[in-house]
Amino acid sequence: MKVRVSRKAHFNAAHRLNNLDWSVEQNQRVFGKCNNPNGHGHNYEVIAHVIGEIDQESGYVMDMKDLKQFMREEIEDRYDHKNLNLDVPEFMDLNPTAENMVVVIWNRLRKRIDNKHQLVVTLYETERNYVEYSGN
Amino acid sequence: MKVRVSRKAHFNAAHRLNNLDWSVEQNQRVFGKCNNPNGHGHNYEVIAHVIGEIDQESGYVMDMKDLKQFMREEIEDRYDHKNLNLDVPEFMDLNPTAENMVVVIWNRLRKRIDNKHQLVVTLYETERNYVEYSGN
Amino acid sequence: MKVRVSRKAHFNAAHRLNNLDWSVEQNQRVFGKCNNPNGHGHNYEVIAHVIGEIDQESGYVMDMKDLKQFMREEIEDRYDHKNLNLDVPEFMDLNPTAENMVVVIWNRLRKRIDNKHQLVVTLYETERNYVEYSGN
Amino acid sequence: MKVRVSRKAHFNAAHRLNNLDWSVEQNQRVFGKCNNPNGHGHNYEVIAHVIGEIDQESGYVMDMKDLKQFMREEIEDRYDHKNLNLDVPEFMDLNPTAENMVVVIWNRLRKRIDNKHQLVVTLYETERNYVEYSGN
Amino acid sequence: MKVRVSRKAHFNAAHRLNNLDWSVEQNQRVFGKCNNPNGHGHNYEVIAHVIGEIDQESGYVMDMKDLKQFMREEIEDRYDHKNLNLDVPEFMDLNPTAENMVVVIWNRLRKRIDNKHQLVVTLYETERNYVEYSGN
Amino acid sequence: MKVRVSRKAHFNAAHRLNNLDWSVEQNQRVFGKCNNPNGHGHNYEVIAHVIGEIDQESGYVMDMKDLKQFMREEIEDRYDHKNLNLDVPEFMDLNPTAENMVVVIWNRLRKRIDNKHQLVVTLYETERNYVEYSGN
Repeated sequence: MKVRVSRKAHFNAAHRLNNLDWSVEQNQRVFGKCNNPNGHGHNYEVIAHVIGEIDQESGYVMDMKDLKQFMREEIEDRYDHKNLNLDVPEFMDLNPTAENMVVVIWNRLRKRIDNKHQLVVTLYETERNYVEYSGN
Repeated sequence: MKVRVSRKAHFNAAHRLNNLDWSVEQNQRVFGKCNNPNGHGHNYEVIAHVIGEIDQESGYVMDMKDLKQFMREEIEDRYDHKNLNLDVPEFMDLNPTAENMVVVIWNRLRKRIDNKHQLVVTLYETERNYVEYSGN
Repeated sequence: MKVRVSRKAHFNAAHRLNNLDWSVEQNQRVFGKCNNPNGHGHNYEVIAHVIGEIDQESGYVMDMKDLKQFMREEIEDRYDHKNLNLDVPEFMDLNPTAENMVVVIWNRLRKRIDNKHQLVVTLYETERNYVEYSGN
Repeated sequence: MKVRVSRKAHFNAAHRLNNLDWSVEQNQRVFGKCNNPNGHGHNYEVIAHVIGEIDQESGYVMDMKDLKQFMREEIEDRYDHKNLNLDVPEFMDLNPTAENMVVVIWNRLRKRIDNKHQLVVTLYETERNYVEYSGN
Repeated sequence: MKVRVSRKAHFNAAHRLNNLDWSVEQNQRVFGKCNNPNGHGHNYEVIAHVIGEIDQESGYVMDMKDLKQFMREEIEDRYDHKNLNLDVPEFMDLNPTAENMVVVIWNRLRKRIDNKHQLVVTLYETERNYVEYSGN
Repeated sequence: MKVRVSRKAHFNAAHRLNNLDWSVEQNQRVFGKCNNPNGHGHNYEVIAHVIGEIDQESGYVMDMKDLKQFMREEIEDRYDHKNLNLDVPEFMDLNPTAENMVVVIWNRLRKRIDNKHQLVVTLYETERNYVEYSGN
């Protein structure tokens, strides 16, 4: 009897799509206005979905207060009001596309959540563009 | 050629998270402000997702008017403007966490929907916290 | 050159519409299911709008971090995860209709905000029902 | 390491639910007010979800600018500000229920997207009614 | 001590922008794709805002159940699942632009609401386009 | 018989709150994490509200296609996917607080809109923080 529980968080960050191994022209051609040298930004929304059995005593899959705290420490405290490319170690060498970001976030949260639970992460870059990663 | 059709309903209810077998201290420690003795409340949103083949004549998986009616009878008429712990039989003995609620709702709707169809239920407690149950 | 700045907060609370001076029948007739003796609840959203001149140095009408803190102290800390009728002094004798609530909230915030600024408060009981008060 | 990327588009269209092989009475009985002879309409929202590996160089599953363009050509340019039953060839003989529409849209997009990627399409008829198709 | 109370309703309708006194060419030039001969459609949302004193006994400006009923009779029952140009008398001769529609709706609701109250109506044609009328 | 017509646009930009005349310490104290040297960013949403008489022939206050084009040229083309402080002339010397931004945007749009119409601009920095300017 597995239930999926979901919790939303958000952070506001600047980023720039750029492959350090490519020429200026290639970056411009592939990433277009997302390659603007001084960056642009987003109000990111991130949803962590945890799947597991309901604990018969508490009626919880896991304590959402814990999940909220993990998301604060692993996501909000690290990315909110930051420039992802310049301020955040994991994106100094990794192009902060939404796809790369959702995998990084999943890996960070995965370490905090009990192995008996599955984890899925959804990341909204805008209301019109979003990505999801389930760990495989 | 299976399509998933989804329909949203909503109800406004009071609830209190509390395990009748636990001490006051344990309930307070685990459930925090959700254990407030006089309760608190939510604008719940519930989405029923029904998965099945498209009927070639009607172009419907099932008549959404029927699904709307089932959701009214099984969910809205029973929970809307109620105190879940005090007014609703199924939660007098069962802690009304979102996880427990979504399983109860799924079981109620399951009886009304043709067995050839799969059912998934999503329940939003707030815009930031929600749960989903698929029946196993 | 006056600008209106707006900040949103939210709280989850139970309430019951009931006039202590009326008979059971009259309360039931006027308030219908909102008069349910054990209460129901909502995810309230409240927006404070402050109107004033832009400070030429900071570029702010007022510091939104201050407004956020005032809303936390005056609204969220007092109403979140509470039963308004039973737990909150100002609604023990005052029927917690959205209209009465928005006036009470406006009066609480008014005391915290510089007199040179105007204040408007919007309170959403649900996405479909909301009220607004400007102080007169 | 598969990621799902999602992109939203929208179109405003009129439609009428009607089975040309049925009597007037049967259409009226099954489709109710959706069978109104002069039609009604919706602000449709459609989300294309593409699942695939992240390209190690670009950090993209696929270029969202391409997906946006495919959705424009296959969906928006064909359906926006149209009467689906009278102006759009594929719905002249096919009842434009949301279920039938999402299958038609999936088939149109499927031809434009690399076969190594999976495709899922979600179609919102209203905020309260939506359908999803994964191709089988 | 005036409070504004607001209530949302919605209807799904087809319409076509067209001035019967203009040539085909002029209609096409001014209204573009909104002039499509077979029409298009929208999920309209309409909000009625009523401004008045709080009744000291009920704590209401007016009973929202009454306002909901007036909106059902004057708006939803008349426009929902209709073609505005072909099925609704008031738009057979009047071009159903959002501007004209909001004035018509305001006039219909005005007759139902106590004269001591002010009325404002907001009409959303899409999430990105909306209009508001206050009666003067 | 004046109607207000509203149109929404959006842009994604990086910015940094910083007063060039202040010390590093004062900027840090007043603007907190919004002063992060490498900036952060937002999905801005901007709504232009135009108030005027309905033209009896077209049924329009003004052609929304024109307003959409003005917003594209004056706002989206200039700010989207930019770093406001480093890429946009008007914010090189002016601190890009939401308050300052909404006044700049109002002034740019005001020049494009007929003087017989009033103009109000709302700017959302996030869903929880927004500002509005009416020109005085």
